Amino acid sequence: MAGNTFGKLFTVTTFGESHGVAIGGVVDGCPPGLEISEADLQVDLDRRKPGTSRYTTARREEDEVKILSGVFEGKTTGTSIGLLINNTDQRSKDYSKIKDTFRPGHADYTYQQKYGLRDYRGGGRSSARETAIRVAAGGIAKKYLKQVHGIEIHGYLSQLGPVKIDTVDHAVTNTNPFFCPDASKLEALDEYMRNLKKEGDSIGAKVSVVAKHVPVGLGEPVFDRLDADLAHAMMGINAVKGVEVGDGFDVVEQKGSAHRDELTPDGFASNHAGGVLGGISTGQDILVSMALKPTSSITVPGNTIDVKGEAAEVITKGRHDPCVGIRAVPIAEAMMAIVLMDHLLRHRAQNAGVQSITPVIPAQK
Amino acid sequence: MAGNTFGKLFTVTTFGESHGVAIGGVVDGCPPGLEISEADLQVDLDRRKPGTSRYTTARREEDEVKILSGVFEGKTTGTSIGLLINNTDQRSKDYSKIKDTFRPGHADYTYQQKYGLRDYRGGGRSSARETAIRVAAGGIAKKYLKQVHGIEIHGYLSQLGPVKIDTVDHAVTNTNPFFCPDASKLEALDEYMRNLKKEGDSIGAKVSVVAKHVPVGLGEPVFDRLDADLAHAMMGINAVKGVEVGDGFDVVEQKGSAHRDELTPDGFASNHAGGVLGGISTGQDILVSMALKPTSSITVPGNTIDVKGEAAEVITKGRHDPCVGIRAVPIAEAMMAIVLMDHLLRHRAQNAGVQSITPVIPAQK
Amino acid sequence: MAGNTFGKLFTVTTFGESHGVAIGGVVDGCPPGLEISEADLQVDLDRRKPGTSRYTTARREEDEVKILSGVFEGKTTGTSIGLLINNTDQRSKDYSKIKDTFRPGHADYTYQQKYGLRDYRGGGRSSARETAIRVAAGGIAKKYLKQVHGIEIHGYLSQLGPVKIDTVDHAVTNTNPFFCPDASKLEALDEYMRNLKKEGDSIGAKVSVVAKHVPVGLGEPVFDRLDADLAHAMMGINAVKGVEVGDGFDVVEQKGSAHRDELTPDGFASNHAGGVLGGISTGQDILVSMALKPTSSITVPGNTIDVKGEAAEVITKGRHDPCVGIRAVPIAEAMMAIVLMDHLLRHRAQNAGVQSITPVIPAQK
Amino acid sequence: MAGNTFGKLFTVTTFGESHGVAIGGVVDGCPPGLEISEADLQVDLDRRKPGTSRYTTARREEDEVKILSGVFEGKTTGTSIGLLINNTDQRSKDYSKIKDTFRPGHADYTYQQKYGLRDYRGGGRSSARETAIRVAAGGIAKKYLKQVHGIEIHGYLSQLGPVKIDTVDHAVTNTNPFFCPDASKLEALDEYMRNLKKEGDSIGAKVSVVAKHVPVGLGEPVFDRLDADLAHAMMGINAVKGVEVGDGFDVVEQKGSAHRDELTPDGFASNHAGGVLGGISTGQDILVSMALKPTSSITVPGNTIDVKGEAAEVITKGRHDPCVGIRAVPIAEAMMAIVLMDHLLRHRAQNAGVQSITPVIPAQK
Repeated sequence: MAGNTFGKLFTVTTFGESHGVAIGGVVDGCPPGLEISEADLQVDLDRRKPGTSRYTTARREEDEVKILSGVFEGKTTGTSIGLLINNTDQRSKDYSKIKDTFRPGHADYTYQQKYGLRDYRGGGRSSARETAIRVAAGGIAKKYLKQVHGIEIHGYLSQLGPVKIDTVDHAVTNTNPFFCPDASKLEALDEYMRNLKKEGDSIGAKVSVVAKHVPVGLGEPVFDRLDADLAHAMMGINAVKGVEVGDGFDVVEQKGSAHRDELTPDGFASNHAGGVLGGISTGQDILVSMALKPTSSITVPGNTIDVKGEAAEVITKGRHDPCVGIRAVPIAEAMMAIVLMDHLLRHRAQNAGVQSITPVIPAQK
Repeated sequence: MAGNTFGKLFTVTTFGESHGVAIGGVVDGCPPGLEISEADLQVDLDRRKPGTSRYTTARREEDEVKILSGVFEGKTTGTSIGLLINNTDQRSKDYSKIKDTFRPGHADYTYQQKYGLRDYRGGGRSSARETAIRVAAGGIAKKYLKQVHGIEIHGYLSQLGPVKIDTVDHAVTNTNPFFCPDASKLEALDEYMRNLKKEGDSIGAKVSVVAKHVPVGLGEPVFDRLDADLAHAMMGINAVKGVEVGDGFDVVEQKGSAHRDELTPDGFASNHAGGVLGGISTGQDILVSMALKPTSSITVPGNTIDVKGEAAEVITKGRHDPCVGIRAVPIAEAMMAIVLMDHLLRHRAQNAGVQSITPVIPAQK
Repeated sequence: MAGNTFGKLFTVTTFGESHGVAIGGVVDGCPPGLEISEADLQVDLDRRKPGTSRYTTARREEDEVKILSGVFEGKTTGTSIGLLINNTDQRSKDYSKIKDTFRPGHADYTYQQKYGLRDYRGGGRSSARETAIRVAAGGIAKKYLKQVHGIEIHGYLSQLGPVKIDTVDHAVTNTNPFFCPDASKLEALDEYMRNLKKEGDSIGAKVSVVAKHVPVGLGEPVFDRLDADLAHAMMGINAVKGVEVGDGFDVVEQKGSAHRDELTPDGFASNHAGGVLGGISTGQDILVSMALKPTSSITVPGNTIDVKGEAAEVITKGRHDPCVGIRAVPIAEAMMAIVLMDHLLRHRAQNAGVQSITPVIPAQK
Repeated sequence: MAGNTFGKLFTVTTFGESHGVAIGGVVDGCPPGLEISEADLQVDLDRRKPGTSRYTTARREEDEVKILSGVFEGKTTGTSIGLLINNTDQRSKDYSKIKDTFRPGHADYTYQQKYGLRDYRGGGRSSARETAIRVAAGGIAKKYLKQVHGIEIHGYLSQLGPVKIDTVDHAVTNTNPFFCPDASKLEALDEYMRNLKKEGDSIGAKVSVVAKHVPVGLGEPVFDRLDADLAHAMMGINAVKGVEVGDGFDVVEQKGSAHRDELTPDGFASNHAGGVLGGISTGQDILVSMALKPTSSITVPGNTIDVKGEAAEVITKGRHDPCVGIRAVPIAEAMMAIVLMDHLLRHRAQNAGVQSITPVIPAQK
């Protein structure tokens, strides 16, 4: 219960520090018979990888994942799947200065207080490097969901600082380094990031993920609702400070007559709910958005204290993303996949024996 | 794993339908020796109870909780605590019409599809009535946190439709039926609700909860971060569609130089983070906010379908809150208490043996 | 994690002390659509109930179970099932003497040391009275297993002190107060117990449970093997000190050529394994046996200490079974049912999507 | 919940097949600040390693464990600990014959039926090779228990076929290849094994583990009793068919007056209970014994079927232990350590806040 496992039936356990020997994990509960290879997982790892554009950190993390077990002759066997990524580009010396100083906005202070000691190199366990394993694990879930249920998961940047997207075209998302689904905003993003870099500052972002073709019925009331588990998953991504499902915080000013999604013989008339009612999927698109804070590692000097409690100044010179939100897109997709996979198995466990009933309304197109 | 248990070490399991014989639950993991009585729990149950103002439903739910076990001679014994609230005012006939029709915005359709059958009376298991047990369980946690650590938890309404609060005075919150902490907004709230009632419509709301004097160190990275578990807990409350920690969605437009909370020898200089860094409590106030959708049970007619998939119209005539967000205040407090209690025990489990270290900065006043 | 919940997918959580207001529990994860009534559960509760023969305690525990939720119009709904049994015959005064003295062989000393206080009335939480809820919960599992899979579970007394059974006839088991499946031993048992009562002493017993028609494939290697979970379940029954699967401790002196169960086109040629290989059910009968210690509450005086650590003498005058093993039969059946149910759901979760394969050998007749 | 994780607070998750790339695991929940190195873990891995005597398999498994994370500058950091052992001596060709044939007594048939496919090489996931990671994980627990509480864990062979030990001298155990604590039996064991080898057969064994200096209070009633979790752990070791605590199956013929351990001002007068009462440790030695079946891989020909259900003959020519029980000694020690560690943390979680009480009787010497 020390927190390094996610999921109940499809579980992902991770280990590893930013500058340790390796990061890795164990995926348990994957159904047998799924065709999977390291190449399948590498696709999203490469999307998450830093150094793919000038707006993400220039560190080279090779992020080459190895599958150590649970796959035989190209198929999952139903046993636990070991994943490993060696740390190749460690450069520990870059981080030696932060040994005795708590960087504001980082987990340095809280880890030190919680455990009495910490691996300070590159943020140690609190570094976003750990999320590479989530992406690899999510890749397994993604493939299963797609293959067995036709479920598709699309993440994208929906806002970066003041720049908001107007349209969502999933075909556009992966063609640019911002994961921006609106081609008309690319220039504005580029300009905004250029200026930000000059300032040595960073900026927050909003990221959205949509899952299509999710069957009706996923989610376990009353505590493990699908949306509650999605909130858990997304708020557990580094830097996330808010999570919305469907209309999210807009509902505060909505009236019931406007918000409730009416049902018609042809399906739901709208999707304010974001595909979840009473904690259970409706068969519509599931939409989750999240707010990511600006990275705290900036070159603008800041006040802090050292481990003795004395005043100190900090300037973070390392290689850091000016907007951590961008790289969160594949991570959010992976967590969506893991949550859906987990709930698919949970649903099957309890309801597989029940006589199947015909969905009374057509699935969303 | 069917979803009716919350928590890992301090666990709350609930059962019961809106119009069944009784609702109840089991609290497991409570430390022994805590003085607790039914009267202690009744305080918050009475705050949550409908019928306490003209703006909440006129149903009488006595909500008298009984402690069936785990307490001996006024003190917890460390064994599981059974809680029971009998359902007294059931009036099942009010709900007979919804047997064959799916109310839009409700869980009728999703429960029917998931389980193949449903207890349709008053929403059955999906009714917010179940949350009374969460409030009772939270009362146990609240008392322990207060007594052993001096932790205080204050919930309040921060927005209702267009009416936003400007100031927070916890002394004001419990003096009005809106749980509004800003006395200057009471008239506006009253007027808004009066008009809403005439329209037969409902409205969304934003609710906030703050926890004071939480020790530094609570939260289990990487998946069970304190904020991630709070998001799970809050998104699991009926009608919640969004959760924020600290500045929440405002971070999207914040720069790193503005967002990061600097540390000084006298403590943190600000609290944009909402008391959590790297998923671990900082010792500052923990602030969580949530968006609650407008209730879907309104007298404005709406389109829907029946269980055969044919078009139907629905008007909900029962006794319903025009703003479910209001009554969510004590529920959100309870869930905050349960999460903190759970993480307090989790922290102790792993770190009790470590030599205590002196917090380098003073606790927040 | 305080220990009052059993199971992963089909979970049973219990509460209640021997002389409290009530005992009860929550069953979570039961598939929807199962026809179940209180009368169904009462059958086994009546078998477990004391006072049914002169060889079990004369206390009257009415043990009338109420289903409080999760069942609607006679069928399970898939939501959590609340169970309650009120304590009617409490007679707390009988137990007032043990307040300050630790009874040898009981949990008095360990509870006091663990929790710093204890509900001493009738053993409090450590009383076997709690197992009534396990029996009720097991009744739900039993019915499902029987109805959906034709699985039958038969418990019986296989040894009591020196009296060992020679044959097993399940039709005989419920015709006598010993749950003895061998009619030829009834007289010997009767005589042995008569003498034991005169001595004021008690005796140990061996109880066995067999499950028939369990499908091949249940059990989750490597830690949650079917046999490992059965061992957990059975060793968790009050007074159990040993658990065997199949040939059990006889294997210590067996050779591999004798032990291994050969396979033939017509099925397994033998069942030394007790229906489990590699932690997974083989489709053969599952056989589990357990050793139960003699009850420690006897009228033979014994040495002990009081709460101050001073020497004391104890004579237990209450109403106690001279052989607790006898009444354990329905409890062991219930735990077998709960474990099988849990593993059935776990198996479905992961393997429901796999193309069904034809078992290559016929099921055991 | 696919079964590859053991423990609630101190958790061990393993992965890996006998002839895959590597085996490994994740230990989560270890308190921070424990000094630990790979060399610490290697000690028991070398004890478990095959090829250390002529009576265990001649395969060379280097079993060199690497710690990949969770340890910084020689101390645990409180984050998850990744463990890895590369598979060096795979020789897959040895096993190609068993691809289409189910070896009697092995998990071949049940894995094939459960998952629809299996990694047949060397037993794949069902091979005892996986237990090497349990031994490594147990080494971490062992060190912590020893260092913080002075707890010592001693495993030993208590019977092999007809040869039973008469005395237990822990100093003798590690001086011989049988883990036999009775020097007077070494010759008999040697002779017995020599003859067995000639026959090409195998034999069962009984293994015991004792834990000394365990504090009173560990164990979580009612389901997660210390003895129930020990039974789970031990029955989960490959080939184990029975588990006993204290007097075990001898209690069947014991009377209450003989079995109950009387208390005196100087401590318990005896330890029939094996150090557990009501599922909670008494402060006495904890004694667990287990029966291990004879290995099924023998050169005596046996009948079986192939994957098509047709009759076949099997002779296992590989390198196999004639008595798998011997090598189970360090594995059983490891599982004892893991269970105690888990319960130590669970006890702390709930009871750390309770005012400490003085144990009323002295600890066992």
